[in-house]
Amino acid sequence: MNVDWDNFRTIWLKKGDQKTVQIIDQRSLPHQFVIEDITTVDQMAVAIRDMHLRGAGLIGAAGGYGMYLAIIEDPDSAVKAAAKLNATRPTARPLFAATERQLAALEGLQSATERRSAALDVAELIANEDADHCRLIGEHGAQLIKELSEKKGGETVNIATHCNAGPLAFVANGTATSPGIQAHRDGIRVHFLVDETRPRNQGASLTAWELDSMGIPHHVIVDGASGHTMQTGQVDIVMVGADRVARNGDFANKIGTYMKFVAAADSHVPAFCNFPSSTVDWSIPTGAAIPIEERNPDEVRYIQGLARDGRPTDVLLTPQGSPAKNWAFDVTPARLVTGLVTERGVCKASEDALRGMFPEKASPSRRVSTR
Amino acid sequence: MNVDWDNFRTIWLKKGDQKTVQIIDQRSLPHQFVIEDITTVDQMAVAIRDMHLRGAGLIGAAGGYGMYLAIIEDPDSAVKAAAKLNATRPTARPLFAATERQLAALEGLQSATERRSAALDVAELIANEDADHCRLIGEHGAQLIKELSEKKGGETVNIATHCNAGPLAFVANGTATSPGIQAHRDGIRVHFLVDETRPRNQGASLTAWELDSMGIPHHVIVDGASGHTMQTGQVDIVMVGADRVARNGDFANKIGTYMKFVAAADSHVPAFCNFPSSTVDWSIPTGAAIPIEERNPDEVRYIQGLARDGRPTDVLLTPQGSPAKNWAFDVTPARLVTGLVTERGVCKASEDALRGMFPEKASPSRRVSTR
Repeated sequence: MNVDWDNFRTIWLKKGDQKTVQIIDQRSLPHQFVIEDITTVDQMAVAIRDMHLRGAGLIGAAGGYGMYLAIIEDPDSAVKAAAKLNATRPTARPLFAATERQLAALEGLQSATERRSAALDVAELIANEDADHCRLIGEHGAQLIKELSEKKGGETVNIATHCNAGPLAFVANGTATSPGIQAHRDGIRVHFLVDETRPRNQGASLTAWELDSMGIPHHVIVDGASGHTMQTGQVDIVMVGADRVARNGDFANKIGTYMKFVAAADSHVPAFCNFPSSTVDWSIPTGAAIPIEERNPDEVRYIQGLARDGRPTDVLLTPQGSPAKNWAFDVTPARLVTGLVTERGVCKASEDALRGMFPEKASPSRRVSTR
Repeated sequence: MNVDWDNFRTIWLKKGDQKTVQIIDQRSLPHQFVIEDITTVDQMAVAIRDMHLRGAGLIGAAGGYGMYLAIIEDPDSAVKAAAKLNATRPTARPLFAATERQLAALEGLQSATERRSAALDVAELIANEDADHCRLIGEHGAQLIKELSEKKGGETVNIATHCNAGPLAFVANGTATSPGIQAHRDGIRVHFLVDETRPRNQGASLTAWELDSMGIPHHVIVDGASGHTMQTGQVDIVMVGADRVARNGDFANKIGTYMKFVAAADSHVPAFCNFPSSTVDWSIPTGAAIPIEERNPDEVRYIQGLARDGRPTDVLLTPQGSPAKNWAFDVTPARLVTGLVTERGVCKASEDALRGMFPEKASPSRRVSTR
C-alpha cells in the first residue's frame, strides 16, 4: 500500500459531498486499506463503538463530525446526538470535549443553515487542532530523542511504544510515535519496539503498518517481552499516548501501559506520555476517577488475522468453556512517569506542572471570576 | 474431554510396549487431545524442540526417556544422545540435569541389557520424582492459600498465574497451579486469573484447559491486564513456575514474568515462584548467567487457533513486511520475589535460604571433602 503520509488524514469530508464523512476502516488493517462512508450520526456511533476507528484524538474528531451529521439530519437533535455519541465509549476524554464544544457553539443559533454551518466549522476546527497539536507534540518530543541520539554518539535510539497512538489514532501525526517519526524525518537513526498490544493488537496491526509503510525500522514484540527489552538495555526511551489524563498527571491508556511503566521505572528507562491538551480532564484530581471500559470477553477469546489462503479469519484461542475478562485500559500513576509531552512542550507529570503549562484551562472558575 | 486427573501423566511408557514412549501432543490443546508415540531419540528431540511437549519438568522427563530410547537403538550412543537432547532448548535446567543423570548412571555399565535396564530405571525415577516433588509443592503452597483464605474469612482467594506450569508442564501435578488446585480439592474457594501468555498462549490454551476440565473457577486475561488486576485489588497471590533458578533465587520463566513481578511488587501483592529442586542451577550465581532462548519470530507474527469451521488455523497478525523478535523467557530478580515454594517447603528467595533448604546440593565440593 502506498500512503501519502504528507497529506494523511484519518477522517475527512468527502470531496464534492458535504453530507458524507469518510474514515479509514481500521479493522481491515494491516492487510487491507478500506475507506468507509459515514452519512448519519448513528453510523458514526457504530463506527466509534465497534472500533472502525479508534484512538483518543480520532474519537474526538469523530464526535465532532458525528454532531455535524446529526445537525444535517435534524437541526434540533444536538442534545440527543451528543448523548448518543458520548455513550459509545466511556474512557477517552476528547470525545466528551468534542460534543461539549459542539453544544456550546450551537447554543442560541436558530436557523438550520446557521446550525449546520457552525457544526461544520467546529468539526473541522477540532480535526485541524488535533492534527496541529500532534504535529507540535512530534516536534517537542523529537528534541528528547535528538538529545538521546547525541548522548549515544549518533547510534540508533530505541523507542518502545504500546498500542497505536500514531497517525491512525488521531486526525494526523499521532502522539506516541510522532516524536520518533519526526526525528526519523530529521535524519536521526531510530528503531521502534512495537508491543503487539493484545487483545486487539493495535500495535502489531496499526503501529507496525504505519512504520512499515513509512520505512522506519521496527520490530514487533509480544507485550510481555517489553520488560525484558528494557531490563537488558535495548530501550532508550518509552513513549505512549493517553486516552484521558487526570490533572495530577495520572493517565489512562491501553491495557498493559501500567506494567510497561512499572518495568521502565524498575529498569531506569525514561518513560513519557504524549497527548494533546484535549485529553486532560481537569475535573478529576487523580486517575482513580477515570472509568475503565470493560469490553466483550470474546475480544480476548478470539483473535483476527489473515489465514494462509489470504482471507481475514478469526480463531478461538481458549477452551470453549473458559470465560475471559477484557478491560480496555489501565491507569498509570504519575509517580512512574518521567514527563509529559504536549503541544506546548515537555513538563513533569504533576498538577503544578500541568497547570503551569495550561494556565487558562487549569482553573476555569478563577478564570471566569477575573474577567 | 474427560480427563482422569487422579492418574494423569504427561509422559509414560506405552502399555505392553517397552520400546515406545507416549506423550500428549500439546500443540492440539485445548481443542483436541492427541497422544503421540515416540520411538527414537530423534523423535524425542523434535518433540522437545518443536514443543509437542514443553514445561521445565516435562522437558526433563522427556530428556530421561529420550536417553532410554537412544540406548535401545544403540547401547553406545549415550554421549551423542545427550548432546542431541541438550541442543534442543537452552533454558530449562531439568533437561540438562536429566541427561547428566543418565550419563552418570550408565558410566561403567558394559552389557546392552544392563545399560537398557539402567536407562529405563533412571527415566522412570526422574519422572516419578518430578510428579512427587510437584505434589509436595502443591501441599506446601496450599498452606499459603489457606492462610489467605482464613484472612479473608473464607472469601474466594484470587490466584494469578502466567504461562502453564500446571500438570501439563510436568509429569503430573505441576508447580505454579499445584497449590491452588490442591487448595480447591481441600475445599478452599479459589479463582485463577490466567494470563494468556503470548506468543504461544500456553495460559489460554493449556492452563485454562486444565482448570476448565477440573471445574476450577478461572478467567483468561491478556498478559497486559495482569498489572491492572493487581493494582485494583483483584489478586491475592501470584504463583508462577520457573525454567531455571540461579542459586541467589533469580529465576528464568516464560517471557512476561518479570513485568508481572514488578507490577506485583508495586501493587503490594505477594508473588511466589514454585519449582522442584531439579530446576536450580547451583553453578550460576545470578540470573544474568541464564541463557535466554530466542525462537522463530513467526511465533509472534502468526497465531494458531480454531477457525469458526472447527479447523485449527494459523493467522498472520502483523504486516507482511514487519519483522518481530521472540525471546521465550525473561529473568525475574530475587528482590521482587516474596518466596520460593519447593518440594521441601517455602523459603525466601536468597542464596542463604536456598542453601539452607538443600544443604546437600548447595555445595558439592564441601560435601565431598567432608566424606
